[in-house]
Amino acid sequence: MLVCSKCGREYPERFRLRCDCGGTLLVRHELPPGFSDALTGHLDMRRYVGLLPVSEEHLPEPVPAITPLSKLDIGDVTTFFKLEYLQPTGSFKDRGTWVTVAKLREEGIPEVVLDSSGNAAISLAAFAGRAGITAHLFVPAHTNPGKLRLLRKLGAELHIVNGDRMTVHWDAVRFSEEKGLTYVSHWLNPYFIEGTKTVAFEAYEQLSVPDYVIAPAGSGTLFLGLWKGFSELKIMGEIDELPTFVAVQASGHESLCKRSSVKSRLAEGIAITEPPRLEEMKAVLDETGGICISVGDSEIEQALEWLWGRGFIVESTSATVLAALWKLQESGFIPSGSRVLLPLTGSGLKMVEGI
Amino acid sequence: MLVCSKCGREYPERFRLRCDCGGTLLVRHELPPGFSDALTGHLDMRRYVGLLPVSEEHLPEPVPAITPLSKLDIGDVTTFFKLEYLQPTGSFKDRGTWVTVAKLREEGIPEVVLDSSGNAAISLAAFAGRAGITAHLFVPAHTNPGKLRLLRKLGAELHIVNGDRMTVHWDAVRFSEEKGLTYVSHWLNPYFIEGTKTVAFEAYEQLSVPDYVIAPAGSGTLFLGLWKGFSELKIMGEIDELPTFVAVQASGHESLCKRSSVKSRLAEGIAITEPPRLEEMKAVLDETGGICISVGDSEIEQALEWLWGRGFIVESTSATVLAALWKLQESGFIPSGSRVLLPLTGSGLKMVEGI
Ligand SMILES: [Zn+2]
Ligand SMILES: [Zn+2]
Repeated sequence: MLVCSKCGREYPERFRLRCDCGGTLLVRHELPPGFSDALTGHLDMRRYVGLLPVSEEHLPEPVPAITPLSKLDIGDVTTFFKLEYLQPTGSFKDRGTWVTVAKLREEGIPEVVLDSSGNAAISLAAFAGRAGITAHLFVPAHTNPGKLRLLRKLGAELHIVNGDRMTVHWDAVRFSEEKGLTYVSHWLNPYFIEGTKTVAFEAYEQLSVPDYVIAPAGSGTLFLGLWKGFSELKIMGEIDELPTFVAVQASGHESLCKRSSVKSRLAEGIAITEPPRLEEMKAVLDETGGICISVGDSEIEQALEWLWGRGFIVESTSATVLAALWKLQESGFIPSGSRVLLPLTGSGLKMVEGI
Repeated sequence: MLVCSKCGREYPERFRLRCDCGGTLLVRHELPPGFSDALTGHLDMRRYVGLLPVSEEHLPEPVPAITPLSKLDIGDVTTFFKLEYLQPTGSFKDRGTWVTVAKLREEGIPEVVLDSSGNAAISLAAFAGRAGITAHLFVPAHTNPGKLRLLRKLGAELHIVNGDRMTVHWDAVRFSEEKGLTYVSHWLNPYFIEGTKTVAFEAYEQLSVPDYVIAPAGSGTLFLGLWKGFSELKIMGEIDELPTFVAVQASGHESLCKRSSVKSRLAEGIAITEPPRLEEMKAVLDETGGICISVGDSEIEQALEWLWGRGFIVESTSATVLAALWKLQESGFIPSGSRVLLPLTGSGLKMVEGI
C-alpha cells in the first residue's frame, strides 16, 4: 500500500504522487521474513527484486548495476565511496526510474510527463524509450545543447520552455492535466524511492552498517532512499541500529540548513529550495541524531579536484559529500575511527568532449 | 608463467611485454579445479580474483564493476549486450588496467610510460594515479582539449607530441628506454588480457555459453580476453564448447579482414592496422569457426542511433558490433534462434557537454 507521511491515510499500491491531504506518500510493501533469503542470484539490481513492490515480469531493460564500493582512508576516518555514477545513464537516478517504469508498465501507462533537464530527465528518457513509453520532457531553453541532443536521441519528446524553473514546472503540470497524462515527478513519486533504497541494501552487503551516511539532500530521493533501505533492514531484524544521517545541501539553496546568501552554481543537482519531502528529511535527522550541512562552491571545487585525482570521474554535485565530510571532521562531529558511507551520484564524463 | 605465442618459450610470471624472439606473451597461471568453487563473495570484479595471476593485497581501487547484461531480440536472434561502458573510467579497459596495476604494485614499479589518447590512457591515468604510480602519457597534439584536461586532472604526466600516431609511439618508446622506465602498451601486455578475460566469466554466469561472441578486434585486447576466459572455463571442465568468435574491424583499418579503401573515422578505438597479436586473433577464428567482418561509417552511425534509442549511451566504436550483427544476419552466417553476446565497450557520455 501507499501511506501518507502527513496524515497516515492509506492507498492501494498504484501509481500516485500525493495524498488527498497534499502529503507525500511512501510505499509500505510487505517485507520478506529475512533479508538474505530474499536475495536472488542475479548479479545486477534484480538481486533485490524480492524487496521491491514490482513483479519481475515488468522490470525494464537495461537493468541497473550493483555498483562498486571504494574504500579510502581520509584523515583518521574510513570512507566508503559508492560509485552510483556507474549506472546506465550515468547517475543513481536509474535505480528510481527502473522501479518507476516497471510500475508504469504494470499499470499499462503509455505516456508520461516530467520537468527536468538533469540526470532524472536523461534516466527517464532512456528507460521509457526502451520500454515503449512516450516521455514528454519539459526543459528550460538554456539547457546545454549537447544534453538536448542526447535526450532527443534517447527518444524523448522535448518541450522547450522560455522562463525560469517554476515556469517550466507549471507548463509541465498544465500539459499533463490538459492531456490527461501521468506526471511522474521524482520529487513526489514513491516508487522512485523504492529504487534508491537498494543503494542501502548493496552497501550493507558490501560493508555492513556504516556509522555515518553522508548524502546529498535536494529533493531527498537518494537521502530518503538510503534511510528507507537501512530502515527496512532493521524492520527485517537484519540490523539493530541505523547509521547517523548527514544531509548535504548547497549554499544559497538550503531547505534543512539555514539559508545562506551566496548561491552555489556547482551543485545544480541539489539546488532545490522547497522540496516536498522536507518534513520526512527532518524526521530522518531527528531519528538518527543527524545534521544538515551546507557547502559552497569553493569547497565543492576543491573536493571535485580531490576526487578526480583519485580516479573518481564525477560531476560537481557529487563532490558535495566530500566537502561535507571535511567540514564535519574539522568540527569534530564525525570522530576519529568512524566508518562513513558517501554515495557519488553522477558521472563527470559528460563534461569531457561536447558534441 | 608467461608463454610465447610464437615459439612457446616460457618466462617467470613477471611484468614483461615480449618474448626474446619478438613473439607476444600470454599468462598461463595455474587454474583452480573448479570455476564455481573459485568465486569469492565480492559483488565486484574481485569475485574472480581466484582466477587471476595477482594476489588480493595488491589490487588497486576503485574495483571495476560486474556489468549488467541486457537482453534484446533483434530479428530472430536473441542478443545479450554486455554494458562494459559502465566501468569507473567509462570503458572495458579498466578491467585490464586493474590487473596490470596490481602486477606493477606487486613488483614495486613506480613509474610507467604509455602512448594513447583514448580510453586506455584515461583508464591508466585513473588507476595509476590512485595507486601512486606516475603515468607518462604520450598523446598527439590534436587530442580533444577536454580529454587532455581530464587526463591532467587524473594525475597523468602528459607529453604532447606533434606528429602522427607512429611518431607518438616512437617518442614514448625512446623516452621509456632513455629513462629506464617500464613501457606498458596494452597491445602487448599479457596482464591486460587477464583482466579482460573476466568479461567471459561474468557473461557465462549471466547467460551461460552464447552461440556467438561478436567483439571489436583492433589490438585484440578484448577479443582475446573473451576467448581466453571461455577457454579457461573449458579447461576447468565447466563448459564443453567455445562460442563462435566474430572479429569486428573498421573499414580502411582492417588487419584480419581484407583492407578496404575507405577509411572509417567513427571507429577510432579499433583503427589499428598492424596489431602485434594478429596471429593469435587468426587462431581464435580458426579454432572456433569464426570470421572477420568489416563495417563502415554509415553502418556504424545507423547502429549508434539504434543503440542510443534503446538507452545504451555508448561511443561510436561500440556500435560496430551491432552493425556487424546486422550484416551477419543478412548474410545468414548467424542463423535464426542464435544467442549472441555483444560487448558494448565505451561510454558515450563523453560526447555530451564539453568543458
Ligand atoms: Zn495525507
Ligand atoms: Zn618466442
